[in-house]
Amino acid sequence: MAVGRPVSPSHLPALAGFRLATTACGIKSGDRTDLLLVEMSPSTTVAGVFTRNRIHAAPVAICRQRLVNGRARGLLVNSGNANAVDGPRGMQNALMVSQDAARLMDLPSEQIFVASTGVIGVPLPTERILAALPTLHGSLQAGGWQQAAQAIMTTDTFPKLSSRSCELQGHSITLIGMAKGAGMIRPDMATMLAFLFTDAAVAPKVLQTLLDRAVEYSFNSITVDGDQSTNDTALLFASGQAGNRVLEDADDPSIAPLARALVEVCQELAWAIVRDGEGATKFVAVTVTGAASEVEAKQAAMAVANSPLVKTALAGSDPNWGRILAAVGASGVALQPDAVSLWLGDVRVLASGERAAEYTEESGAAVMAAEEITIRLDLAVGSASRTVWTCDLTHEYISINADYRS
Amino acid sequence: MAVGRPVSPSHLPALAGFRLATTACGIKSGDRTDLLLVEMSPSTTVAGVFTRNRIHAAPVAICRQRLVNGRARGLLVNSGNANAVDGPRGMQNALMVSQDAARLMDLPSEQIFVASTGVIGVPLPTERILAALPTLHGSLQAGGWQQAAQAIMTTDTFPKLSSRSCELQGHSITLIGMAKGAGMIRPDMATMLAFLFTDAAVAPKVLQTLLDRAVEYSFNSITVDGDQSTNDTALLFASGQAGNRVLEDADDPSIAPLARALVEVCQELAWAIVRDGEGATKFVAVTVTGAASEVEAKQAAMAVANSPLVKTALAGSDPNWGRILAAVGASGVALQPDAVSLWLGDVRVLASGERAAEYTEESGAAVMAAEEITIRLDLAVGSASRTVWTCDLTHEYISINADYRS
Repeated sequence: MAVGRPVSPSHLPALAGFRLATTACGIKSGDRTDLLLVEMSPSTTVAGVFTRNRIHAAPVAICRQRLVNGRARGLLVNSGNANAVDGPRGMQNALMVSQDAARLMDLPSEQIFVASTGVIGVPLPTERILAALPTLHGSLQAGGWQQAAQAIMTTDTFPKLSSRSCELQGHSITLIGMAKGAGMIRPDMATMLAFLFTDAAVAPKVLQTLLDRAVEYSFNSITVDGDQSTNDTALLFASGQAGNRVLEDADDPSIAPLARALVEVCQELAWAIVRDGEGATKFVAVTVTGAASEVEAKQAAMAVANSPLVKTALAGSDPNWGRILAAVGASGVALQPDAVSLWLGDVRVLASGERAAEYTEESGAAVMAAEEITIRLDLAVGSASRTVWTCDLTHEYISINADYRS
Repeated sequence: MAVGRPVSPSHLPALAGFRLATTACGIKSGDRTDLLLVEMSPSTTVAGVFTRNRIHAAPVAICRQRLVNGRARGLLVNSGNANAVDGPRGMQNALMVSQDAARLMDLPSEQIFVASTGVIGVPLPTERILAALPTLHGSLQAGGWQQAAQAIMTTDTFPKLSSRSCELQGHSITLIGMAKGAGMIRPDMATMLAFLFTDAAVAPKVLQTLLDRAVEYSFNSITVDGDQSTNDTALLFASGQAGNRVLEDADDPSIAPLARALVEVCQELAWAIVRDGEGATKFVAVTVTGAASEVEAKQAAMAVANSPLVKTALAGSDPNWGRILAAVGASGVALQPDAVSLWLGDVRVLASGERAAEYTEESGAAVMAAEEITIRLDLAVGSASRTVWTCDLTHEYISINADYRS
């Protein structure tokens, strides 16, 4: 089986060791599903990455605590309410719903992970969740990934799923991931959630290393509006049902197919979030090469990707390379001003710090008119490189975010 | 004479030691003036603060070099062309025009300061400037501040002037400042220029200390879109004609009235830039108190002031305090989540990390509907505080900046 073979989201298989259920318990308006429960086999290990925001939601605090053991048996997610900035009550409410889920599943609550996304500063409607839990628990079944991805959406316009199958020590393993959008999200719902599930057997420490790396090159390499939520959460669960011997060493070469599949799934989900960015009309890759370090390459690329002047130029299909240069110059990274080069797509705009002789506004404008755009900058001081992904800044973003919440 | 007595811009007096001239040499379209020449008396000292962008325009490099001596006799400013990112030719062109101005004024060119603002990456039209210089030099005269402030404008909708008179060692001194807008500026013209003139006698080192401090609490405490130009320049010239003995020590208490006047003038100019921000409909002060240090207080305030989600909420008059909290939480500064307080105007929104009992959406919305808004956050970890100023992010900003340059 080839490494990284994708599976169509509508044909995602059941995954040994995981049972799912969703329902509409009334946190979101209408009949939209807003509650997801996942039950996992006893052998399941877990890794997590969370928001670095100093103000984080109660479920984030609970996940951080429960991650210490590296073991998971359940996941309870609600959309429509972030359970953030609600004082001590927020923690009490998160504990209450996870304890009730644990009771129904006959498990210690320390192995139930929780996540919330939605409005900030409003108490979690625990009575609705508690009332829905018995039926939800009763309807757990294999598969149902599409429904699960739907239930965690807030303002997303489509469910985000990605998967890969690969071979690990002669055993076929599968990885399935789902996410909901981050940033450029309607009022109060600027949260990124990602949940990843595999049937591989991986020790918690190794799982964490894999997740850290995959998140850095995916979710932490996208930017929509530079804002960071109080609830951002990525959790990776490994049920250990695939039959491979438990991977205990992150440097074990046999782990490579899984590591690569994880990066690919996380990147596909991250790109889907950017494509679903509020008001976005363009998908933009910003690559910085010739940097002094990978950290500086990312810093420079992020400065370009977050610049409102660059993002509005992208919206207007304007090859305004002066703004790109100003953004990277202000980013604080080392660069050689008289040796910097810049490309829009395959069109060289700057060579050795000045406008390339062959460059014309028309050739630049043609690149910028496309829906997928690549900006490439060479800083001419080193050999490190990184790519980040972003979208444009449009009228639609202002309309969505300046509207009064109601 | 009272400290900080403002003078109406239309009645700004001639200032001993300075003669000004402006003209339209054809860099900008129409009959708009685009060239300013200032001649200064032999006793004039100078201080300067420049963009920290690693990619800076040729005039910035020249000013930095010439600042070493602390002496100035002339200033030549053009608008309509930034003379930036033009390779070695940019430096040759800047040297050429300053040498010609020096020749006409019969001065060493090392004492002529230069500044440019306008389109990036297009060669400076030196022939137009050189052709205009003789007549410009011939028309130097006392006063003419309003015309000078007009000549340095690019997309500014009004000239920006501010002044103060105060007493220094029994001598009446005057300070006059002019500026043009920074950030949220039409394509390619995102530059902030500020020129300040006083008849006080101040040693170069002391002048630099005064300017550094005033810039920090004014131009470096405003943000429109977080972008930093290749050409940002603030220059302070002191002609020494007021009769006071030369101030040689920055800690001399008799310097206080001038120091305060300088902060006030710089703040008024900075506020004018924010008010003239592209598409801006609101003027917003963000104050952070209870921070661990002044640096962290500014960092937190800037994170709020630069957040697109906060700025669009401001545009929509939406009291979306969750976004303010998320921005400050993500800023990386120390704070105590369960003790943070937040006010919109005089309305307390958060107390001890949770929604204040008395807070209502209606009271928050009333504050946000005003044209002048104050956001105040207490981080509850220290006693340092800072204020920064910003504007909202509106449809008009997108329209202006997404339009194709033409």
